[in-house]
Parts: sequence; C-alpha cells; structure tokens
Amino acid sequence: MTRDFNELTSTAAVLERNVNCRDVRLREIMISLVTHLHAMIKEVEPTFEEWAFAIDFLTRTGQICDDKRQEFILLSDTLGVSMLVDAINHRRNSAATESTVLGPFHVSGAPHLQMGDSITRDGKGEPLYMSGRVLNESGAPIAGALLDVWQTSWDGFYDVQDDRQPEMNLRGQFVTGNDGRYFFRSVKPASYPIPSDGTVGTMLTALGRHPMRPAHVHFIVSAPGYQSVTTHVFVDGDPYLDSDAVFGVKESLIVPFVRHDDSAAAERLGLGNPFFTAEYDFVLVQATVPQPAPFAAKA
Amino acid sequence: MTRDFNELTSTAAVLERNVNCRDVRLREIMISLVTHLHAMIKEVEPTFEEWAFAIDFLTRTGQICDDKRQEFILLSDTLGVSMLVDAINHRRNSAATESTVLGPFHVSGAPHLQMGDSITRDGKGEPLYMSGRVLNESGAPIAGALLDVWQTSWDGFYDVQDDRQPEMNLRGQFVTGNDGRYFFRSVKPASYPIPSDGTVGTMLTALGRHPMRPAHVHFIVSAPGYQSVTTHVFVDGDPYLDSDAVFGVKESLIVPFVRHDDSAAAERLGLGNPFFTAEYDFVLVQATVPQPAPFAAKA
Repeated sequence: MTRDFNELTSTAAVLERNVNCRDVRLREIMISLVTHLHAMIKEVEPTFEEWAFAIDFLTRTGQICDDKRQEFILLSDTLGVSMLVDAINHRRNSAATESTVLGPFHVSGAPHLQMGDSITRDGKGEPLYMSGRVLNESGAPIAGALLDVWQTSWDGFYDVQDDRQPEMNLRGQFVTGNDGRYFFRSVKPASYPIPSDGTVGTMLTALGRHPMRPAHVHFIVSAPGYQSVTTHVFVDGDPYLDSDAVFGVKESLIVPFVRHDDSAAAERLGLGNPFFTAEYDFVLVQATVPQPAPFAAKA
Repeated sequence: MTRDFNELTSTAAVLERNVNCRDVRLREIMISLVTHLHAMIKEVEPTFEEWAFAIDFLTRTGQICDDKRQEFILLSDTLGVSMLVDAINHRRNSAATESTVLGPFHVSGAPHLQMGDSITRDGKGEPLYMSGRVLNESGAPIAGALLDVWQTSWDGFYDVQDDRQPEMNLRGQFVTGNDGRYFFRSVKPASYPIPSDGTVGTMLTALGRHPMRPAHVHFIVSAPGYQSVTTHVFVDGDPYLDSDAVFGVKESLIVPFVRHDDSAAAERLGLGNPFFTAEYDFVLVQATVPQPAPFAAKA
C-alpha cells in the first residue's frame, strides 16, 4: 500500500516492492542502492532543473559510448569508484604486486610476441627497454606467465584513439620462460588527458579538476594457478603522480625510467640512442580460492 | 596526495580534488554523491563482474533513449526517485492539489481546444466526460488557467508509442473562463505497462515487480500568479492503485469514473452511450516566491 509516498516513507515503499525478488544478492544490492539514493536526494534536495540535468547527464554519458569509448567507465574512474571496487576485490596482506584500474583502452587479442621484440609499430618516441621478472611470493620465477602490455604513444594517445597510429601499436603479449624474465622494446609513454570532450570532461572542468593521468605502462599479468593482476607501472617524476584523474597511482608501482646516452648499449639492445630503461618485478599470489575473472574479461 | 587510495581514504581522496571548484552548489552535491556512492560500494562489495554489469546497465539505459523514449526517467520513476524529488519540491501545508510524476509521455504543443471539445481523434474506447473547476485556496474560480491534458488510449498506449493512433491523439490544452470551469470529452483511460522491453523492464522482472500503472489522466494546470501543478487523476477501483510501478498514486487524486446508461444524457453531451463521467477540482496556490519551472519545461 503506497498511496502516501512521501519523504518519510519513500525508501520503505520502494523496498517493500521487492518481496517477490528471488535473487538474494540482488535484493541486498537494491537495499543499499535505494537507501543511499534516497538519502542523497533528501540531503541534496535537488530542484526539478537539477534532477532533469542529472537525467540528461546520464543519458548523454550512455549515448557517447561506442565500441571504442566507454564514458561510464570514465565516470566511475574519475569518481574513484573503479579504484574502490578494485581495492575491495584485492584485500590482501602479501607481497603481491598491487593492482590498479583497467581503464577503457585495453584491447583483447594484442599480438603475441617474442621476448625482446618491440611493441612500437611506428618507431616514434624516445626508445625504452622495459624488463623484469614474474615471481611468486617466495621470490621464485614463474614460467609460462602471460604479460598483456599496452601503453600510449610518445605524445599521449592510445592507438584506438589516434588514426595516425598503426593498429595494435604499443600493444603486445609475452610469455615468460623458466627464468620468469620478461623484456621488450618500446617508447617512453607520456602523461595524457583522459577523453575530455564528453560528459566526464565537462564534469571535471566544472569541478576545477584537470583530466591528466601520469605516464604509465599497463599490464595484465596472469599465470596458471595464480591470481592475475591488472596494474600499471608509473614513470617516476611525472608531474601528475599526485593528482591522477582516475586515482590509479600506488607508491609501489612507481619506478624510475632511467635515461642512458650509450651508443654501444643502445646497439646491443636494438634501440636508438639515447634511450630509457625501466625495471619492474611482478609478484603473483597463488589462487587458493576461485577468483573473479579480471575486469579485462568484460572489456 | 593520493598515492595510497584505499577503502579508508577513498571518499576524502575524491572530495579533496574539488578544492578549486567555484560552484558552491555543485561542491555540495558532489560531497553527498561521492559519500553515498562510496558508502554503497563498501556495503555492497561488488565483484568486478557486478560492477561491469552496472556500467553496462547504465550504458544500455542511455543508449535506448531517443526523442520519444527516456529510459533514465523510467529508472528514476521505478526507483521512487522522481516522486521523492517531487515531494521535496512540493512541501506545503495547504489545500492545493497534490502533484505526481510528469512521466515520459508529455508532449509540448498539444492542440489548443475549446471547452467541450473531444481529445480523442480516433473515437476508440468507452466515452468519457471529464469536468471540474480550477480554484484558488479560498475556493474562488481561477480564470485563464491552462490545463494541458494527456492520457492513454482505451488499450493503454500513448499516441507516441502507437503507430495505430493519429498524432496528438488524446492530448489537448484548455483555458478556463471566468467560472474556472473545464470540461472535455475523451475515452476512459486504461491501466498499462510502462515500456518494459528495455533495461528498466529487465530490472523490474528481476525484482519480481510488475510494470503496470493504474489508469489515469495527466494534467499540468497553470495560471498566472499561481504555482503550476503536474499531476494525474486516477480511476478509482483500478487493480494497480496500490502497486503503481512508479509510485505516483496519492489518495487525494483518486476519483470515481461513473458509468451511465442514458441515451438522452449521452446525446446532450455529444457522447456515445453508455458513457463515463469523472469530476475533479484542481486547487492552485499563489506563487509567493519564484517557482522552479515545471518538469515539463525540460521534456
């Protein structure tokens, strides 16, 4: 009986409609959703214009999405929700590599490459040699670990955003051997703005926030019997490390990208001179319980 | 400094980014939004799959919207949010007609008709004679009041949903004379499902809820110097009065739709026999302070 829906009864009125819902989890989610949504409305006391603006904002956010653009993920990212979901799903007291957001630019099916190969397909940018190991919690190498790598160009664009770049530029998948080592050639990534011509960009501007992310290389590292990790390796010294638009930075993921001016070393590594090197060791923990699939599986 | 974003710091980390926001109201809204959104995430502890589902649900909700369909308004309606916003914006201790949701089917620019005219353009359904007055709080008639009326067909569809109906079927605008009276001919509206082939329909099914609304006639009543009211007049006895999918029913808005079998009266009113009559007097309160435009202004 909800013929007298008002500010005092609204939450209960909506929730009592769910008595026939057979999905216990859904019912639990709806209790939290409706309770917080109504509480927020009562706190904010939106005018009709403000509420209509919210409806229109959400509508435009959905309508800007296509097969290459996911504005609701950007909204989730810039409100800190993606990183919060990530934190909740990675509570662990271990030496494992910390995770961070997947972001909207992962592409499934990047080329399978040999260790040492280059992921740049246009050669543009400052040469980078990136290397390290995939280890277990005891420090032993993990053989057969898959590294799915992607990053921006030297000027801060992913291939899918940039018609000037070849397809699958700066993307690759590598499998470790018995030594657990990985190494590949690339170019130094740049800090860059998240797409800011949509609703999220408008929101950031209204909030006096910049849309920049500090430079990083994305990795999804997985291995049979281990929990996979979706993370970034960040470039130390980047001016946006303390104000990442999507809250993705963790201290443990920042590494020096060291500049070298050494023609002989450059030639040995198959790089132009000068060049940069960066090293990061990934640590995976064993999958002792059934794990959720990585966010990537949905992208 | 947000290099250590976690479950304890997330809300503060996101909010501290808004220090440069110059819009005090927006900052206030964001505090409430981010606080409740993060609190909900911490309560629900969504898996990545669940969060990805939410992203996809919102995206699909935006993408189903077009110039005739507004799925986010339906979502707001079915979660009781629209009626809550309405309640907050219509706190009054007066005899004024209670308001209810605008709904997604209002169309601007309905035909201007003379009192007594019919709003049915295809004549299908059980004849209805609807009448009453527009009064002020003292019970005096309001001259020059505009009634914007719309309703479903006999079988529960608005013209904009139904290719079989003529354009502007069952829509009209009427202006009262000095007696404040209104009267027009129509057909008896039907209870009907809100559009259920989109994300909102899927949600209602998952929650074990039906998508039905009890039969009603929509009105926006406005007059110079008065607060306008967006409301419905509901058909007493409708089986869905206690479970309106959008929580729009208020006891004071339910009136009898009385059946008559009287050929002479029918002829006098210009209706087929048998026919229904319904009466409702609207009461408007004076606009003492600047009022927000009715929701209709945005539709």
